[in-house]
Amino acid sequence: MSSSFVDTSFHVRYAETDAMGIVHHAAYIVWFEEGRSAYMRACGLPYSEVERRGYWFTVAEVRARFHTSARYDERIVVRTWLTELRSRGLTFTYEVRRVADNALLVTGETRHICVDHTGAVRRIPQDLLAALRPSEVTNISKEGQ
Amino acid sequence: MSSSFVDTSFHVRYAETDAMGIVHHAAYIVWFEEGRSAYMRACGLPYSEVERRGYWFTVAEVRARFHTSARYDERIVVRTWLTELRSRGLTFTYEVRRVADNALLVTGETRHICVDHTGAVRRIPQDLLAALRPSEVTNISKEGQ
Amino acid sequence: MSSSFVDTSFHVRYAETDAMGIVHHAAYIVWFEEGRSAYMRACGLPYSEVERRGYWFTVAEVRARFHTSARYDERIVVRTWLTELRSRGLTFTYEVRRVADNALLVTGETRHICVDHTGAVRRIPQDLLAALRPSEVTNISKEGQ
Amino acid sequence: MSSSFVDTSFHVRYAETDAMGIVHHAAYIVWFEEGRSAYMRACGLPYSEVERRGYWFTVAEVRARFHTSARYDERIVVRTWLTELRSRGLTFTYEVRRVADNALLVTGETRHICVDHTGAVRRIPQDLLAALRPSEVTNISKEGQ
Repeated sequence: MSSSFVDTSFHVRYAETDAMGIVHHAAYIVWFEEGRSAYMRACGLPYSEVERRGYWFTVAEVRARFHTSARYDERIVVRTWLTELRSRGLTFTYEVRRVADNALLVTGETRHICVDHTGAVRRIPQDLLAALRPSEVTNISKEGQ
Repeated sequence: MSSSFVDTSFHVRYAETDAMGIVHHAAYIVWFEEGRSAYMRACGLPYSEVERRGYWFTVAEVRARFHTSARYDERIVVRTWLTELRSRGLTFTYEVRRVADNALLVTGETRHICVDHTGAVRRIPQDLLAALRPSEVTNISKEGQ
Repeated sequence: MSSSFVDTSFHVRYAETDAMGIVHHAAYIVWFEEGRSAYMRACGLPYSEVERRGYWFTVAEVRARFHTSARYDERIVVRTWLTELRSRGLTFTYEVRRVADNALLVTGETRHICVDHTGAVRRIPQDLLAALRPSEVTNISKEGQ
Repeated sequence: MSSSFVDTSFHVRYAETDAMGIVHHAAYIVWFEEGRSAYMRACGLPYSEVERRGYWFTVAEVRARFHTSARYDERIVVRTWLTELRSRGLTFTYEVRRVADNALLVTGETRHICVDHTGAVRRIPQDLLAALRPSEVTNISKEGQ
């Protein structure tokens, strides 16, 4: 698939650190979610709109590999790609870096299934599929998205 | 009001600590919620049942005072009282202690308003009021609730 | 004290919502922390620098009043004032609003004590006090801080 | 390796739910941590003791597969196995179930590296290795750990 990506950037929150003095590993899973939220906003299809349409992209699998740790107040950038888009599901891939030195902190993927609000698996409607297609996304790097 | 209380106990989770090496102050707000969940289960009126009946006890105010800090893996007990019960709202009061030395960690209160699922303020139904009345609650201290 | 304030803005994260469909009340306590982090960065004294100097502004009290609820993906702004600055402590005051309609969501305060890394109460060093003084802060509204 | 496992059980916290009405997927990552904390306590080697000895079992990789969703107040059990134990690292495997119907909610693994407090990779000391060896652990199912 295309190499279109979207960057979103923020500071590490104190609440995201743990007693090791670094960002707790579960915080990155939340940051992945921030990454795909930013990706979808950049597509012109905010995830809140998907929900209003009666669908959820429920999380079927998460995987994260931790390379380097980050600390409170450091500026972070999450780069998100849509690496798979199928009729009933999609996969996002993430790279989390520290802005100051571009150090690679964490990489990961999340796999999602399209369900309706009863939980039944559903085809992603054509217009949503079209909006998500990476060719529709120009690479976007925004501070403070 | 009566001095009936309910105790609930658990270990500090690593994710609840922060870079100071101690429990992050926002974790206690979540523990207060655990305290009132345990209180309501002990009343025979789990909060999930309140929701099924079409009501929410939405949080109108939170207050917490931090006395001593806690660390990962320490055993904690949250003691909860219902200190006010009105037709449209209620107030819970909390004491959070470390089990090992009974040190007082945090005290606080949360004030709640009864709303329906449209957000409109509503009277608490009589049978729910009756179940919540502290006289109906015997003091309960449970490990591992 | 002066009415200097600092604004910081971000989107509601999905992880910050709860089963009521709205932002969980404990998330605002974390947002207050974001507010004072932004305030201190704007002072030229990031809190990470306070820690490097050997001090913590430990949280002694939190208070929050919840007026209106927010939802996933809404843009939020936290406005922070330093409303008290004493030799051994300080108080921040917060207003959290939804950007779209400027609705007031939550107001609150946090009271802090200056301690060293052994936990002993300490005077705030003169140069830190000087940096924090609101007259040193120009009102700052930044998107995406 | 041996099939020794440790169970730990608790209720879903309201703060762990999200706007889908179910437990947010990142909460399970925290529950995995609870699972391995319980496992290590059952070994007679609480993780807090590992830290006091000057080591961290830092998280190198997390993987979770989401099968069924859970809701507020449901009773959950996390079953934890130590599935790999090497000189410089270890892997835990988890099964998260709902107690009421034994439904399998989430499965996953976390891979850890032993580092000292400077972050350098280190051999796990022999006595810690011995304590962790699954043959030393009897299967333990506890409510309310």
